[in-house]
Amino acid sequence: MDIAIMGYGVVGSGTAAVIAMNQEKISEKSLQPSVNVKYILDLRDFPGDVNESKIIKDFNIILNDGDVKIVVETMGGLHPAFEFVSECLKAGKSVVTSNKELVAAKGDILLTLAKENNANFMFEASVGGGIPIIRPIDQCLAANDIEEVAGILNGTTNFILTMMIYNSMSFEDALRLAQENGYAEKDPTADIEGFDACRKICILSSLCFGKHVFPDSVYTEGITKITPEDVAYARSWGGVIKLLGRAKKVGDRISAIVSPAFIRSDSILAGVNDVFNCILVRGNAVGDAAFYGRGAGKLATASAVVADVIDCARHIDRRKPFGWGNAEDNYVIDRSDAEASFYIRVKGEKKALLKKIAEVFGDVSVLTRDGAEENEFAFITPVEKESVLNEKLGTIEGMEILSRIWVEDY
Amino acid sequence: MDIAIMGYGVVGSGTAAVIAMNQEKISEKSLQPSVNVKYILDLRDFPGDVNESKIIKDFNIILNDGDVKIVVETMGGLHPAFEFVSECLKAGKSVVTSNKELVAAKGDILLTLAKENNANFMFEASVGGGIPIIRPIDQCLAANDIEEVAGILNGTTNFILTMMIYNSMSFEDALRLAQENGYAEKDPTADIEGFDACRKICILSSLCFGKHVFPDSVYTEGITKITPEDVAYARSWGGVIKLLGRAKKVGDRISAIVSPAFIRSDSILAGVNDVFNCILVRGNAVGDAAFYGRGAGKLATASAVVADVIDCARHIDRRKPFGWGNAEDNYVIDRSDAEASFYIRVKGEKKALLKKIAEVFGDVSVLTRDGAEENEFAFITPVEKESVLNEKLGTIEGMEILSRIWVEDY
Repeated sequence: MDIAIMGYGVVGSGTAAVIAMNQEKISEKSLQPSVNVKYILDLRDFPGDVNESKIIKDFNIILNDGDVKIVVETMGGLHPAFEFVSECLKAGKSVVTSNKELVAAKGDILLTLAKENNANFMFEASVGGGIPIIRPIDQCLAANDIEEVAGILNGTTNFILTMMIYNSMSFEDALRLAQENGYAEKDPTADIEGFDACRKICILSSLCFGKHVFPDSVYTEGITKITPEDVAYARSWGGVIKLLGRAKKVGDRISAIVSPAFIRSDSILAGVNDVFNCILVRGNAVGDAAFYGRGAGKLATASAVVADVIDCARHIDRRKPFGWGNAEDNYVIDRSDAEASFYIRVKGEKKALLKKIAEVFGDVSVLTRDGAEENEFAFITPVEKESVLNEKLGTIEGMEILSRIWVEDY
Repeated sequence: MDIAIMGYGVVGSGTAAVIAMNQEKISEKSLQPSVNVKYILDLRDFPGDVNESKIIKDFNIILNDGDVKIVVETMGGLHPAFEFVSECLKAGKSVVTSNKELVAAKGDILLTLAKENNANFMFEASVGGGIPIIRPIDQCLAANDIEEVAGILNGTTNFILTMMIYNSMSFEDALRLAQENGYAEKDPTADIEGFDACRKICILSSLCFGKHVFPDSVYTEGITKITPEDVAYARSWGGVIKLLGRAKKVGDRISAIVSPAFIRSDSILAGVNDVFNCILVRGNAVGDAAFYGRGAGKLATASAVVADVIDCARHIDRRKPFGWGNAEDNYVIDRSDAEASFYIRVKGEKKALLKKIAEVFGDVSVLTRDGAEENEFAFITPVEKESVLNEKLGTIEGMEILSRIWVEDY
């Protein structure tokens, strides 16, 4: 069986490497005599590379080669990935991608194209790198009505937060260390501002709840404003701060958000450190199930890509029913209409403020930290609609809000 | 589509309940107009039960009904489960089971029968309750050569150890609490002696490494000898004690063992508490991936059973390639030939013993605990063949060994 790889970067070269490394097992699992990488599309040259002879620069060679029935897209970015993938599907070729941007922005269109052309479109590697998550949600939890999904979906920010929590580093120092270790890019915006996690929670939400969710409908906040003081308050509360993407059913609609959140130390997500990812799925039969592993990396991500290639090879003559429906207006509820609880760090005349907070919110848990100035403290709000909380907070005079972070119960 | 359930106990009734609860989604995922429980085989009567009218006492009704193409076996035990499942497979019916004893003892025979009769034999629920693990190993990690698998595979013992670690309970008190909570049976032998975990690591080993592994070839030690002193030493070492089933490749053979083990606090397995289970799989591409959730319970286990029913329904006209080969003599290496490191708690003249230990083992890490008698301490051996370690320990005179527990690096 011949396949083609489009994009010979980290994941594309990893895919070729994993196929070479475990050739025998992969062929056997694919129910094929062999799985052969026939072409690798990349505009760059790779002199001396083990796959140099397979590099091509013309996409049409892949498109027009009837022997190539499975195409792996690991180029990244929306264009020309979207056009190339569309053409392949229209030609009846199955496509496997690791490109989360593509799936989050165009998944609905590409799934429809796959269906219309009796081909498969798979993207296990687009969320959680090597962690099995798309197929387990689709198949293993198929007996469940899924109520909620939440995860540590970005390794870069999890590494930074781990350094802030356990090595008392500042955000800036931790980011620099992540860059030195190759965990963060020179321009780290997509990671630290939460955009990468947002694409992944969109894919998970679409899969779990059945309608396409676009990134721009999901409120997204990164970790750049997290300070060592917030980390200390989280510790005194009995937990840690993690960047979480999460979504849940609210009637016929869903709430979905990406932001830092306080979670309790005994949560399975709290023990997920460094560049690891973990996705928790809450089903009405299984309860909580969680999936943990490396969220990035050449061979880990390629492991997921090749699992999809194997699945496509086993379903080469027929479509595997899989996917979700089109997006719907007002499907994702507005952030301010969602119920939430917050950690609020404030400055002001403590005794007077505590009295007013109690008047407004009732009994709240008040947090302290070593080394805090006398006029600084923090508290945890009850769970209410964010718009209601905002209104109530607005009535407390003389209170300067220094930070506010979601409090979650996973 | 008609199915039958054999055994209307916890898992069997849970299976019927989950199918009723999520009927629409389950039918859709099964690609069937509906999924209907036609018969429930049980020798007991269930007057007033919602499924009373479906209860039958004669297995032949199921066997001879050509409309029943999928049979769920949730009776437990080897007999008559083995005979009933065999007959169903011979009749070309697909079988889904949650029965770990059956799969561990007869999996090779039943997989062969399934193959010969173009039927499917699936058992996602036999390991880890509702946790997706069999299908993810078989499909999602298909691109990997799996090197190692390890897990907290028994909820009862994990609950007991959690109480010993965090609530300073003795083994006896924690067991009593587990029984009061319904987490342990009146006769808890199969759980606390590790037999249940042994069956599960046998199933995982068979699946990961390709040859059937029988429970009697796996050295199995339970948690009955673990004391609060051991828990304290584990803490001073920086970790916790967990009952682990684990297996790994050693050349063309495997090592496999069930026993308590020290693991570091920063291991993902260390954060798995109460009745939860977690299975860690180490692949040559993905690195470490872990799967977490409820290892038992009515609806959780039924969630896995129904996922298999759905998969069988989707493959009703054809076999899904899945399984492993027959057992082989001397495939599991002898415990004494496996490399290991141990925590050893001893009594004796400390200064003299430390000198001898250093002579025999070189530099070892010595552990202390609050409240220990002057002549008690513990140390961690280097990693060596257990037979070599035993020989070396035998040369140290005047040292009474109070406990020895494996030290693992997951």
